[in-house]
Amino acid sequence: MRGTVMYGPGDVRVEEREEPRILEPTDVVIRVSAACVCGSDLWPYRGIEDLAWPAPMGHEYVGIVEEVGAEVEAIKLGQFVVGSFWGSDNTCEICQAGYQSACVNRIPMGSLGAQAERLRIPFADGTLVATPEIPSDDLIPSLVSASDVLGTGWFGAVAAEAGPGKTVAVVGDGAVGLLAVLAATQLGAERVIAMSRHESRQRLAREFGATEIVEERGDDGVERIKELTDGLGAHSVVEAVGTQESMLQAIHATRPGGHVGFVGVAHGVELPAMDLFWSLAHLHGGPAPVRRFLPELIDLIWNRQINPGKVFDLELPLDDAAAGYEAMDERRAIKALLRP
Amino acid sequence: MRGTVMYGPGDVRVEEREEPRILEPTDVVIRVSAACVCGSDLWPYRGIEDLAWPAPMGHEYVGIVEEVGAEVEAIKLGQFVVGSFWGSDNTCEICQAGYQSACVNRIPMGSLGAQAERLRIPFADGTLVATPEIPSDDLIPSLVSASDVLGTGWFGAVAAEAGPGKTVAVVGDGAVGLLAVLAATQLGAERVIAMSRHESRQRLAREFGATEIVEERGDDGVERIKELTDGLGAHSVVEAVGTQESMLQAIHATRPGGHVGFVGVAHGVELPAMDLFWSLAHLHGGPAPVRRFLPELIDLIWNRQINPGKVFDLELPLDDAAAGYEAMDERRAIKALLRP
Repeated sequence: MRGTVMYGPGDVRVEEREEPRILEPTDVVIRVSAACVCGSDLWPYRGIEDLAWPAPMGHEYVGIVEEVGAEVEAIKLGQFVVGSFWGSDNTCEICQAGYQSACVNRIPMGSLGAQAERLRIPFADGTLVATPEIPSDDLIPSLVSASDVLGTGWFGAVAAEAGPGKTVAVVGDGAVGLLAVLAATQLGAERVIAMSRHESRQRLAREFGATEIVEERGDDGVERIKELTDGLGAHSVVEAVGTQESMLQAIHATRPGGHVGFVGVAHGVELPAMDLFWSLAHLHGGPAPVRRFLPELIDLIWNRQINPGKVFDLELPLDDAAAGYEAMDERRAIKALLRP
Repeated sequence: MRGTVMYGPGDVRVEEREEPRILEPTDVVIRVSAACVCGSDLWPYRGIEDLAWPAPMGHEYVGIVEEVGAEVEAIKLGQFVVGSFWGSDNTCEICQAGYQSACVNRIPMGSLGAQAERLRIPFADGTLVATPEIPSDDLIPSLVSASDVLGTGWFGAVAAEAGPGKTVAVVGDGAVGLLAVLAATQLGAERVIAMSRHESRQRLAREFGATEIVEERGDDGVERIKELTDGLGAHSVVEAVGTQESMLQAIHATRPGGHVGFVGVAHGVELPAMDLFWSLAHLHGGPAPVRRFLPELIDLIWNRQINPGKVFDLELPLDDAAAGYEAMDERRAIKALLRP
């Protein structure tokens, strides 16, 4: 089968890879209907993160179940499924507490390479959620977004305790940040402030429910958020970038007792603990336990209450995956969908 | 009147200071019945924190109201009062949310110098809570502990979400850590693990409700906590030291989805955000909003349900304050009570 492999920074190829097959009785194998390129795929692409080269790529996926292991119970042959970017048993104590991304048996789906024609899914019952029927084609972008980018934005908003009566600020206007705006809106936030200086992303943020836009960054951005909140700061701030500046911007823009949800992958960030101490903010984040949210997210998408698939502004055949990486790296595209 | 003044690192003197008086109509002046030396007073004493020398010292106090400003309503002449180490109006939006230590009008009581015969209290109605009657003398150590050290340990346990069914670990066996053990027990925790290698402090931790003791520190301490919790880590960890090692120990000892409450003053600590990211722990802490907890804490002390005053293992007349600093600096005493 065809699949995407990164050979080193900037070097993405689509080539023949070994056909996936059932290895454990809890596995299924799916035919991938859609995959995509993640902001986190750009870390190794930019040489900021090292992989074991050559590395199969991709951890976001939807598809049709083609093979089913002997111990799989909930997932059936022929179903259309959406999966988390972590394989999880969904039965251990950590999963049961809602942290499937830290399942004691977790498997990073990125190690299996979802940007491919077919994909083995470990712990199928614990990793996948089936849709009610085979979806119409226009729902596919939204469904694949639930696999990571929507689930991650959603977790950011939940971790920031976005909800009724709250003013929520979102730092970062990538796909995750934009979908955190959507999530905060869905969760009932009173005001949602998107921090963005790109006109097209501002427009999408407004479509997703942003009530205000702040263009300033860093300390100026913090000042602007304080001006908009009686000098107190936002109740909830979602951090969806993962840099030193964005983390401090998020912490400083939060009022005492407020909540920061951080989902940007914080490579090399060192947080001065005194800033956190004096902020009296709550801080929570990490790799999103997407599986916790999948049933709810699929339901919202299925009933066309949300349309997160709008973050895909580039759609390519799988064979052109390299062009998707390039467009996202150059910020010409927010997010690239790949169709095998 | 007599009061404690620090002239520089290691140089504590008790001398004549100006008599406090009502400056604002919301002030009262109290005669201090007891004050104490705080672990945080040791930062400048050890030269780790700079003050505007000479600096009046002390921010923990109880006493009898001797003068009352014209706009004070709840607090009455002659009452015995316990106050927070922050002056707070208790009416602003931040106070109403329970974060009086970040009141928009907050005043650090340390700047007024509570280790003295008399003390001006700003925002008396918002800072002080009166006891039902004048307490008997044996209750005074516990009542003054509520002013900071008990309130801070309590906040640490609340921030760590200690409660029924939870395994709580406490990093730090100073007065705050020991009282976090007491707090976790009172809050209904199932298991409370005190991390201490000092026999006398272990004994007090057991008296306060610790069910287990861990002597190891750093990575070894983390390993031990994991061994005691099926490899998962504690649900709740209170950090009551404020060093790089203790913060990382707390984060690493917490299970995914668990909570770290940090109340150690984190001078110079830089947290690798990736550690926090992968831990999936919640992190919350800072200067404790003691005023939030004072009514409940006073009630528990008044009814002799808790005896936090046991952390005072040294009692001195105010004039011997310097000896109290010295004993705590050398860890010969857990905490020194000063009687003016």
